[in-house]
Amino acid sequence: MPENILIVGGVALGPKAACRCKRLNPDATVIIVDENVHVSYGGCGIPYFISGEINNLDDLRATPYHTVRDPEFFRRMKGVTVRTQTRALAIDRAAKTLLVKDLVSGREQTLPYDKLLLATGASPRIPPVEGRELSNVLSLTRLEAAAAIRSACQKGSVGKAVIVGGGFIGLEAAVALSDMWGVKVSVVEMTNQLLPGALSASCARMAAHDCTSHNVDVFTSEKVLRLTGKDGAVQGVVTDKRELAADLVIFAAGFLPNSELARTADLPVTAFGAIAVDEYMRTADPDVYAGGDCASIKNIITGKMGYLPLGSMANRQGRVIGTNLAGGTATFPGYVGTWAIKLFDLSFCGAGLTAERAVAEGFDALGVGVEQLDRAHFYPEKNMMGLELVLERSTGRVLGIQGAGPGGDALKARVDAVAGVLQYAKPTVADISNLEVAYAPPFAAAMDIVNVAGNVAENVLAGRFTPVTGEAFMELWQKRDKNKVFFIDSRPAAGRAVEANHPDWHSIPLEEIAARIAEVPRDRPVALICNTGLRAYDSVLILARNGITDVVNAMGGMQSVRKMGLKP
Amino acid sequence: MPENILIVGGVALGPKAACRCKRLNPDATVIIVDENVHVSYGGCGIPYFISGEINNLDDLRATPYHTVRDPEFFRRMKGVTVRTQTRALAIDRAAKTLLVKDLVSGREQTLPYDKLLLATGASPRIPPVEGRELSNVLSLTRLEAAAAIRSACQKGSVGKAVIVGGGFIGLEAAVALSDMWGVKVSVVEMTNQLLPGALSASCARMAAHDCTSHNVDVFTSEKVLRLTGKDGAVQGVVTDKRELAADLVIFAAGFLPNSELARTADLPVTAFGAIAVDEYMRTADPDVYAGGDCASIKNIITGKMGYLPLGSMANRQGRVIGTNLAGGTATFPGYVGTWAIKLFDLSFCGAGLTAERAVAEGFDALGVGVEQLDRAHFYPEKNMMGLELVLERSTGRVLGIQGAGPGGDALKARVDAVAGVLQYAKPTVADISNLEVAYAPPFAAAMDIVNVAGNVAENVLAGRFTPVTGEAFMELWQKRDKNKVFFIDSRPAAGRAVEANHPDWHSIPLEEIAARIAEVPRDRPVALICNTGLRAYDSVLILARNGITDVVNAMGGMQSVRKMGLKP
Repeated sequence: MPENILIVGGVALGPKAACRCKRLNPDATVIIVDENVHVSYGGCGIPYFISGEINNLDDLRATPYHTVRDPEFFRRMKGVTVRTQTRALAIDRAAKTLLVKDLVSGREQTLPYDKLLLATGASPRIPPVEGRELSNVLSLTRLEAAAAIRSACQKGSVGKAVIVGGGFIGLEAAVALSDMWGVKVSVVEMTNQLLPGALSASCARMAAHDCTSHNVDVFTSEKVLRLTGKDGAVQGVVTDKRELAADLVIFAAGFLPNSELARTADLPVTAFGAIAVDEYMRTADPDVYAGGDCASIKNIITGKMGYLPLGSMANRQGRVIGTNLAGGTATFPGYVGTWAIKLFDLSFCGAGLTAERAVAEGFDALGVGVEQLDRAHFYPEKNMMGLELVLERSTGRVLGIQGAGPGGDALKARVDAVAGVLQYAKPTVADISNLEVAYAPPFAAAMDIVNVAGNVAENVLAGRFTPVTGEAFMELWQKRDKNKVFFIDSRPAAGRAVEANHPDWHSIPLEEIAARIAEVPRDRPVALICNTGLRAYDSVLILARNGITDVVNAMGGMQSVRKMGLKP
Repeated sequence: MPENILIVGGVALGPKAACRCKRLNPDATVIIVDENVHVSYGGCGIPYFISGEINNLDDLRATPYHTVRDPEFFRRMKGVTVRTQTRALAIDRAAKTLLVKDLVSGREQTLPYDKLLLATGASPRIPPVEGRELSNVLSLTRLEAAAAIRSACQKGSVGKAVIVGGGFIGLEAAVALSDMWGVKVSVVEMTNQLLPGALSASCARMAAHDCTSHNVDVFTSEKVLRLTGKDGAVQGVVTDKRELAADLVIFAAGFLPNSELARTADLPVTAFGAIAVDEYMRTADPDVYAGGDCASIKNIITGKMGYLPLGSMANRQGRVIGTNLAGGTATFPGYVGTWAIKLFDLSFCGAGLTAERAVAEGFDALGVGVEQLDRAHFYPEKNMMGLELVLERSTGRVLGIQGAGPGGDALKARVDAVAGVLQYAKPTVADISNLEVAYAPPFAAAMDIVNVAGNVAENVLAGRFTPVTGEAFMELWQKRDKNKVFFIDSRPAAGRAVEANHPDWHSIPLEEIAARIAEVPRDRPVALICNTGLRAYDSVLILARNGITDVVNAMGGMQSVRKMGLKP
């Protein structure tokens, strides 16, 4: 059993693997080296420290008992040696040694290892733009930056902030700054949507509306060209479309895996720079492991090597590696890509591929959206939830799911149920129709929204109706002079909304459509909408029975349209 | 394609199957017969109507748009004929006819069918005790009974109620009567725990404590012998242990599947009286289907035919049957048994087998309990959650999961994630350790409780510590004079609870145990407890390194003990 375990990196995975290894093999010598002062902190909590929801920065590196996880903690409680401010310079794989440098004394030293773990994490991607060295230009991975931002907010010296990048960390920071400190925030995102790769275009539009309706400006398909400053401090951001004033700029434009150490030791890395590992989390060298934000693991859905830098992934992988460092043979199955984020009124959650991502991966994929209450409709406390199921057209295989709603835990329940099946089986839409989830009126509907998503997807695949997104429906509406589409609102006349007050927006409730079939033209395309999609579907079937088949139906109905901030 | 579809029973599955069939095959004639006045109602909502959370009884038989689902609704909107107050008397399978009787006119009629669906539901099991015919003795399956109970509560004429049966409906009714109307409720349960079959003994003790601490008396292992009355109205309940005064008695002692029609037509039923169906939900006669509360389906975990009368099962099965009635070949995979219930401060949720049930089914099974916060510990809003994973000792196969906590949706998320995997794979504890669930600090911990449950289970199976339940720990404590166990509280000294103020309750925090090892006797068994179980586990490892191995550790720590209402 190996005696000398050496770990490079002490944030999440490194300490987890160290403690697990030490528990299983108390005789091992376990040393963690890290070039920073702080180790073992919850980097994911930084936005919540900035917002003030977490009061003390030390809470991010403390146990639930408020014991700070510093080197002394690891020595006394875990029997693990932590050497901070110690940079790993080079691996000599033949000699099984690691060259390190003490950043305080400047002294270099060669440490022997039996097993080495690279837990070097990732660095924020800073676009190479002019002005990036100005003060008040930060990224959000270090505790020091978090403290600086919160301190500036508390002093009132941040009136306007620009966040470069509309991914998870960028949006969490936007919410924190805007909601708590009243900072006027602009998010600049290079791609054409927020949370690219995680959300479908429709869901991303809902996320954007949640931001803009809470005074956060969102600029997509926009590129930062340079930062401007005065007296060394940032003053503005120039994009390819506008100039934005800024007292604070946060770069949240993704991560680059820290894999130099591995590369210079001739360990294979993937195309996007992450260290390739097998199911045991071992690199090409059986004595060198890697995991967390610096490593590439298998995407279970595509079967290809991928990258998912998330604290939860790091923790789970850390335990697997810890077992193996102690002589075990634990495996990590890869990932399907499961995530969650809380914005303002809405939470978003997803697993697997988006429709757009699936198409890019070569699947003949489409997304099918539904909206429904997250409880029995007769139960008093309830929220509207939206889910989008991503499927392969030819096989009905489910490739992913995403959703949005005010009830975050309830949304997580639906997504996690599908995520588990995606991880250990290859579900079809029929499996989601029949997915057995916990039911009682305070928790779910008897035909729960996750099952309804499967049902609707099955109806779409069977060609029973032609779906359009709420966005596409509203685009048809805007262009009605050209496309000559006939619009039908299938909601009950009693509940007729303001949208009905337009001569081209025809209110023909489901209850009346059979009797009023003569009002529906046979020489024009027809587009139907209702509240959530269900009555419009029943109306489509009635139209079909009457020979009217050039019909589309808005998925998720007006509920989806409104979440996107659209109006007829 | 069959033309005449005849359905017996119009509550949940019948209407669902009828509408689905009619959507797929609009040319079919679909007739539902039901002996009652009301059809298509949400029976699961009855407790919430009694509590007043649902205001109007019609809400239970209305669409989300407040359209009441009466025969006229089905005729106009769905093209389905509903004949209420019409009792099915006999099936002639050779002639493919059903004899029915109009309960108003008394007239009998023979209806032909191409496909017949038995959706006859189940009847409440009324124990054959004296006095069961008294007034104010009710069960909770009919809307009429619900209206009578609420009306009596509103009039203030119910001071004391006895509920016979501590299953789902019994407890939902107990909460409704006690919480909303201040009725003094006693629950009498024949078996030795609440929610038998659904909850482990430990979790059931938590449910009982949630009830008793909210003024609901719970009497388990107690049998009702007779009801006493005055002037025809119930006045008391005599059990084998006491006499309870009662203005209202509710029988909630389980269900008996309504399978007489099938039995008299020589269709096979299972030992417990439910109609046997195959994966297409077909009986032994290919032209006769059955589903919902009258049918038996496969338990995916045991592989045996079982019974799960739940509205959600009926809805999903109804859709499958509707597809098949229209000529399709949809299948229903069976069930793992997933459920949820909200009591007072706590919600409970589970899937699969309990440890006790698994042992009864022949598995060498045990339950492993954990307690942890349902969010990142540094996130301000969070709740303590308890989970119990049920596993097969020899293989590490996961057979079930249950949990308890104040955050119901968050609990559902963990249980549903495991339920999905149980349904479509045969997960091991390692799969639960690695289960990929959505993570962000407002939703989960980086090492989420569901993963921790897998980790702890793996440690138990590997023999790294010997767990005892909180209940067993407290029993050891009570009998300390005899068993000579040495008790250690591993919580930090600063957070030392009142329990420590006893000379035999030794406070040796994890931080100090290595230094104070001499205080731990080597000739006595040792029992450790902490807040949730984690620090006690680390202490166990330190004791083991020092040669002290006759040690047990309380699963879920004081969090679990307190939820059971126990005190040192």
